[in-house]
Amino acid sequence: MRVVRFISIFAAALFASCAPASGNTMADVLAASKASDWRPLDPANTLYMELDSGRVVMELAPQFAPQLMANLKTLIREKYFDGLAIMRAQDNFVVQWGDANEEHPRPLGKAQAKVPAEFERAAQGLAFTALADTDTYAPQTGFAGGFPAARDLKADRAWLTHCYGTVGAGRDNDSDSGNGSELYAVIGHAPRHLDRNITVIGRVVQGMELLSVLPRGKGDLGFYQKPGERTPIRSVRLAADVPQAERSHIEIIRTDTQTFTDLIEARRNRKDDWYKAPAGRIEVCNIPIPVRQSSK
Amino acid sequence: MRVVRFISIFAAALFASCAPASGNTMADVLAASKASDWRPLDPANTLYMELDSGRVVMELAPQFAPQLMANLKTLIREKYFDGLAIMRAQDNFVVQWGDANEEHPRPLGKAQAKVPAEFERAAQGLAFTALADTDTYAPQTGFAGGFPAARDLKADRAWLTHCYGTVGAGRDNDSDSGNGSELYAVIGHAPRHLDRNITVIGRVVQGMELLSVLPRGKGDLGFYQKPGERTPIRSVRLAADVPQAERSHIEIIRTDTQTFTDLIEARRNRKDDWYKAPAGRIEVCNIPIPVRQSSK
Repeated sequence: MRVVRFISIFAAALFASCAPASGNTMADVLAASKASDWRPLDPANTLYMELDSGRVVMELAPQFAPQLMANLKTLIREKYFDGLAIMRAQDNFVVQWGDANEEHPRPLGKAQAKVPAEFERAAQGLAFTALADTDTYAPQTGFAGGFPAARDLKADRAWLTHCYGTVGAGRDNDSDSGNGSELYAVIGHAPRHLDRNITVIGRVVQGMELLSVLPRGKGDLGFYQKPGERTPIRSVRLAADVPQAERSHIEIIRTDTQTFTDLIEARRNRKDDWYKAPAGRIEVCNIPIPVRQSSK
Repeated sequence: MRVVRFISIFAAALFASCAPASGNTMADVLAASKASDWRPLDPANTLYMELDSGRVVMELAPQFAPQLMANLKTLIREKYFDGLAIMRAQDNFVVQWGDANEEHPRPLGKAQAKVPAEFERAAQGLAFTALADTDTYAPQTGFAGGFPAARDLKADRAWLTHCYGTVGAGRDNDSDSGNGSELYAVIGHAPRHLDRNITVIGRVVQGMELLSVLPRGKGDLGFYQKPGERTPIRSVRLAADVPQAERSHIEIIRTDTQTFTDLIEARRNRKDDWYKAPAGRIEVCNIPIPVRQSSK
């Protein structure tokens, strides 16, 4: 069978277990990884969105959006999202969820309606694993806290990049109008033009395929035209508020390690027999961040 | 309602009709476009893949892969794909279709089993609309014949870039093992590392959302594990072989025009009220190539 060879972000860990540890493909790098190359998710910064089709696990990035994060956690603890829906799926762009009822919106409770923009932060004081590769949009890209990111050292600015799976807080025209009550996840090519224009809160680390397959909305901007087309949200919970036995036990690779540097190089210059012309370069949104099941 | 503002590739033409022609957003540029800014698809280089869910329209790029194209047309005229299936959907990568029966494969008829690699071509003699923007993977990117492309003038090489919707010919490890009997379409972030490693035959210009929503396969590389999970292909036809009344009447924007240059600039520096920090740069796979219905 003719196969376009590739190991996906989410399949990567599966492959690791059956690959020899001697070579230098990504599978080899993962097979040779040590326990210390992986980290558990922090339950205080992990969201579970429960759909009829399964669970979407999101990791929050508190280093970048502490105020939005606090507001979002207030909403979640009020069970704000329970019974709301995914109301938009725009092909090659985003799915979006929140309250579709504009006339009688669900009250925000103790959460704020406005949260100051956290589109970027100071670069100083942020641990950053930089890529040597040129990027179209930013002076430098890399990883910060396990998330794809970019920075401009001259301007002392850093921000999370919009890649496949990135989650952000939708807003109106006013910069402070995003409060966490509407969220979106990228389901297409990285919309990097959104960088520095909206508050990114984290990324989907498991369950992306539950969002990416949703039927595209036929209304403007991919909004569904009929309520019945929406995907109901059973609940959104912080992992910390979910009993241990019901949590997703996954680990994510650390991005500040030699193993991750080796992984990047394995992807930059593919060594398996299929590739005839290794790219020699890599773009930040093309680097998989492997996830695996953990025993506990 | 909080909305992440964006006009998709396929929604763009819809927006054009309701936008004022005075500004400089993409909608404005399209509204001000002339008839001569658009071209019909050449029926001799247009494929219709008919699924139960609808028609996927693909435009072929004969300037880049004439030999593969000839072989593919032979297969199509033999009705090779009719009754075969989409057998792979890997999240954030590709869907792939062809013959899943490895033990008793469908005969290729008069088509060749091997076709020389057409991963790239001479840059000389190829009309190319270049972007000024830096690209991670190539010395220069832009558009050739209406397709996103890249070139290396020093080496006199040009190739089609793997963007969302790009269609290529799957192959085994041997460079000449792709013959058109298995094709793939990109459904995720641009896998630019495939550039110059595989023969690209064109791109999906309408119906991408029929492919991008397919359930992801749970087998290795996103292959479906059970035949019943595959998506049947009713037929694949060259538009030229389809009666006029049954053809899709669409036009695509010309990429070698001032209008398209204006469109790129409108996307490079967003002018609507939502954007606070226009990117000032654009990546070739982030430029929409609008399609619209034509009257004839």
